[in-house]
Amino acid sequence: MIVLVINAGSSSLKFQLYQMKDESVLAKGRVERIGMESAIVTIEPTGKPEVREVREILEHTTAIRKVLDMIVHPEHGVLKSVSEIDAVGHRVVHGGESFSSSVLVTEEVKREIKRLFDLAPLHNPAHMLGIHAVEANMPEVPQAVVFDTAFHQTMPPVSYLYPIPMVLYKKHKIRRYGFHGTSHAYVSEQAAKFLGRPLEELKLVTCHIGNGASCTAVDGGKSIDTSMGMTPLEGLMMGTRSGDIDPAIVPFTMAKEDLTLSEVNSMLNKHSGLLAISNIGSDMREIAEAMEAGDRNAALAFEMYEYRLRKYIGSYAAAMNGLDAIVFTAGVGENSALLRAAVCRGLSFLGIEFDEEANARRSPDDRAITKPGSRVQVLVIPTNEELVIARDTYGLILNRNDVE
Amino acid sequence: MIVLVINAGSSSLKFQLYQMKDESVLAKGRVERIGMESAIVTIEPTGKPEVREVREILEHTTAIRKVLDMIVHPEHGVLKSVSEIDAVGHRVVHGGESFSSSVLVTEEVKREIKRLFDLAPLHNPAHMLGIHAVEANMPEVPQAVVFDTAFHQTMPPVSYLYPIPMVLYKKHKIRRYGFHGTSHAYVSEQAAKFLGRPLEELKLVTCHIGNGASCTAVDGGKSIDTSMGMTPLEGLMMGTRSGDIDPAIVPFTMAKEDLTLSEVNSMLNKHSGLLAISNIGSDMREIAEAMEAGDRNAALAFEMYEYRLRKYIGSYAAAMNGLDAIVFTAGVGENSALLRAAVCRGLSFLGIEFDEEANARRSPDDRAITKPGSRVQVLVIPTNEELVIARDTYGLILNRNDVE
Repeated sequence: MIVLVINAGSSSLKFQLYQMKDESVLAKGRVERIGMESAIVTIEPTGKPEVREVREILEHTTAIRKVLDMIVHPEHGVLKSVSEIDAVGHRVVHGGESFSSSVLVTEEVKREIKRLFDLAPLHNPAHMLGIHAVEANMPEVPQAVVFDTAFHQTMPPVSYLYPIPMVLYKKHKIRRYGFHGTSHAYVSEQAAKFLGRPLEELKLVTCHIGNGASCTAVDGGKSIDTSMGMTPLEGLMMGTRSGDIDPAIVPFTMAKEDLTLSEVNSMLNKHSGLLAISNIGSDMREIAEAMEAGDRNAALAFEMYEYRLRKYIGSYAAAMNGLDAIVFTAGVGENSALLRAAVCRGLSFLGIEFDEEANARRSPDDRAITKPGSRVQVLVIPTNEELVIARDTYGLILNRNDVE
Repeated sequence: MIVLVINAGSSSLKFQLYQMKDESVLAKGRVERIGMESAIVTIEPTGKPEVREVREILEHTTAIRKVLDMIVHPEHGVLKSVSEIDAVGHRVVHGGESFSSSVLVTEEVKREIKRLFDLAPLHNPAHMLGIHAVEANMPEVPQAVVFDTAFHQTMPPVSYLYPIPMVLYKKHKIRRYGFHGTSHAYVSEQAAKFLGRPLEELKLVTCHIGNGASCTAVDGGKSIDTSMGMTPLEGLMMGTRSGDIDPAIVPFTMAKEDLTLSEVNSMLNKHSGLLAISNIGSDMREIAEAMEAGDRNAALAFEMYEYRLRKYIGSYAAAMNGLDAIVFTAGVGENSALLRAAVCRGLSFLGIEFDEEANARRSPDDRAITKPGSRVQVLVIPTNEELVIARDTYGLILNRNDVE
């Protein structure tokens, strides 16, 4: 079975094409600057050189058509015909309280995703464009949706409710949802495999540290708490997002600087985090370089970033009354040995015996960066959200065929 | 030396009169409903019955005069003459970045407290009324001010800065200040005495849990982080305050419910916390009673309150990379065996061997509620902010006399 995985944004779209027999990637690529005359389409067919094309692409239906054209292109394509694609799986950021697992797309599912536009105004409408664009191009092909929030639907009320008037939950569904669920779920399973222990017995803190960042308390394979909240703003300090602050800062700043609601949102989401403190950028690689060159703001930004992550790990160990392993994943988590070292050195009291050498080694494989006897293990596990989307889609199709 | 301690609010005023020779309380009392025709003045002279009077008191100068009258009253007074009072110490909530310790009141100190009105609009103006009222009644008597924020001025930038644009710190002094500092400082010192170890060697998490609540990471006697922030809204769930929430909830709720800045502040400060979730009240005793009677909202409120406190303790252990003792203090911390038990049972992984019996015993003394061999000790230490204010005032006067 062949599955196409789509992650549609408002002006971009990423895809990966999977052969599910061996879970191999046949091709991946992206369309950037959708809506522009000079949109860019890129495909990387596995084992062949990357191909780029610049052309006018005004909306998502054209973007998907162009992706399909490239996939079946006689020269750099990987399939003979679009009809070889058995299913399409979409990443959808917000599944609200309605979706605790991946589902096949139906009219009702589409209506529900639309109802959630309010909670994810930047993401869900774009995902819907992607779903419609696939429908328009391949009306017969079944589609599935895989939600960033679904894994966290196991959280108990004590974690997901905020201590604010209950009417806000009942009326506007203001609660903690959490995000990056696909990644937290994937690395939890990989961690159990790596440790050779049943996931049901493990207490894990999974740290998905990319430009957006969140960590999750995974107890017995279930998310019981996570740092992102109603929106992806809460929790850890991120590239350009503040994470946790005194909520009173919001009205105070609005009053002092005469900001609108949209301006204060933009300030906290796009002009805060590493960017605001370092005055250099939001990318951990830039911060680390500047730090090495002696930049004090960069050093401060790094320290705050590390400190806030370390505190979350401690708080989740307390939430679970124990900890077996910490997992680092995503861009920064997989690549910044500096960050991992700072966090782990500061957590030796938990029983972490850090292995500096193992931490410094680069590798694409799942691996431990603690010494063999360490009471708490620390792992680096490259995430693979696309694979989870492909697997979930595949599973839903198989199951549907069984039922029919 | 005799020191009068004053805690002036906008419509109330509490006082305690100390004989510093033996740190005994000669009398204490309060004035309520200042500004009303039927204000209430209460004095409790030590060893004599409480006296109450209802009369018109329109402003703080009259309130202080009435307090002094009662202190020297021939029947229920405790001094022969007001001139026996050697100094007055005031509690002041916000000392900003200017004050890292208690100081004698000068014109410059008063100007600085006024400059901080913006950061503590509900508190500092009232404290200033108290200072002026004492000046008006006893112009010759030296006064000292003791700040709730001072103890936390040892926090490093990594703890006190927020990951938001630096201009907000430079221009508006938006940063973490922390509160209840006098209490956190006092119980830290008491804890070291109780444990028979130098404070400089100890890693403590002090939990001041009253109607307002905060906890502090005290490393070597110094506050290195604390849960309250720029304002007393941040951090733990409290009686009527939310504590930490996704900052995006503020603009989201303002938009959805068409709230003004002042309304959203009021919602988060006065209509959240235990009150919002329990739908019963903000007092832990009421919550505990309702819980016992089987009320599910009360149970949820209690669980959230406990869970959020427990997570903070874990995060501060991570902040210090270790933990020697947890200290509970203030109304709820000293009296709710239920809360302490829930927190400690959930932290056994830290090496807490909880002593259920010791926890259930009521006592006004400093005490441990862990078993003797417990790796992390848990203490209950009644706080005494008034005594610290009296001591600081006494020390400043002695020191001034030395210099002169």
